[in-house]
Amino acid sequence: MANITIFGQGNMGQAIASVFTSGGHQVDFVGKEGLARPAGDVVVLAVPYAAVPSIIEANKEALTGKILVDISNPVNFENMDELVTPVDSSAAEEIAKLIPEARVVKGFNTTFAATLATKSVAGKETTTVQLASDDQEAKDIVAGYIQEGGLNTIDAGALKRARELEAMGFLQITLAAREQLNWTAGFAVIK
Amino acid sequence: MANITIFGQGNMGQAIASVFTSGGHQVDFVGKEGLARPAGDVVVLAVPYAAVPSIIEANKEALTGKILVDISNPVNFENMDELVTPVDSSAAEEIAKLIPEARVVKGFNTTFAATLATKSVAGKETTTVQLASDDQEAKDIVAGYIQEGGLNTIDAGALKRARELEAMGFLQITLAAREQLNWTAGFAVIK
Repeated sequence: MANITIFGQGNMGQAIASVFTSGGHQVDFVGKEGLARPAGDVVVLAVPYAAVPSIIEANKEALTGKILVDISNPVNFENMDELVTPVDSSAAEEIAKLIPEARVVKGFNTTFAATLATKSVAGKETTTVQLASDDQEAKDIVAGYIQEGGLNTIDAGALKRARELEAMGFLQITLAAREQLNWTAGFAVIK
Repeated sequence: MANITIFGQGNMGQAIASVFTSGGHQVDFVGKEGLARPAGDVVVLAVPYAAVPSIIEANKEALTGKILVDISNPVNFENMDELVTPVDSSAAEEIAKLIPEARVVKGFNTTFAATLATKSVAGKETTTVQLASDDQEAKDIVAGYIQEGGLNTIDAGALKRARELEAMGFLQITLAAREQLNWTAGFAVIK
């Protein structure tokens, strides 16, 4: 049984927690006050991208050596027309620069909360979590925990692929916001 | 019945032709020699991205006022690690700059050829063609022809969304090239 720490108790944080707990793992939530106890083996940043830097700054020591899962879609929600990250980077890469001591894994950003909670995309296909990281072992560990929770995973390659994952996550959000698809549906990965 | 001109007779050109012909439309293929006759109402550029500028240059007059469908994924196939287009643009936007007289629609770049030919993603979900354009009427016309061919479409918004569609197409290609998924499968869109 792994200990997993999740920053943020919004829809995404709760849905991700349900995946890990149904896989038999222990989940602790952490609020804005910072870590109340030592971080788990895996730490998930389920907060808006804008909140990430201060969390990392406040918890740098506790996060050192940990697997740090970035789920963010750094969308400019004021215009819904662009990402706020540099065009030749990604949220995940920016986070890895902020804390090179952590083992950063990108994941959960192309799956709406409802598809994690129900484990399916609109009841039609098993939800697949796409994972990207430069740390293969860290990526495989996270993939294992997700699979134990009943979801599929796919290895999306190096952390640089977070650029494409975040573009895909952004596109999916715009499609739902424009009512072209449902928040319980979206992109399914069929192997 | 619409007349559709397709540049390129590769896997994608042929698969796209099959969609339009099964919808009752007329398709003419054009090779590198350029247009042998007046272009159809819709012209599809089913050639590698590198071949697009010379085709546009040679056929500028014939393409004026036409609906021009860009299906390209401008991947750097030497390293499979980046796109060759500027990071703050897309192939579709670059093409629109080359020929502002055409009505550019981005489409077919997130659907592997086999999923167009069989009309399904690995036999599981009906294939969905994502379309982006600044010309709503042109986008709706192309969507109608595709739907008549038995596929689904989704309106992905303005032409700028081609950035995300091309990132998604690139990601899908890397996943298949790395044998994480099949060339008959990939990303399905569930509404």
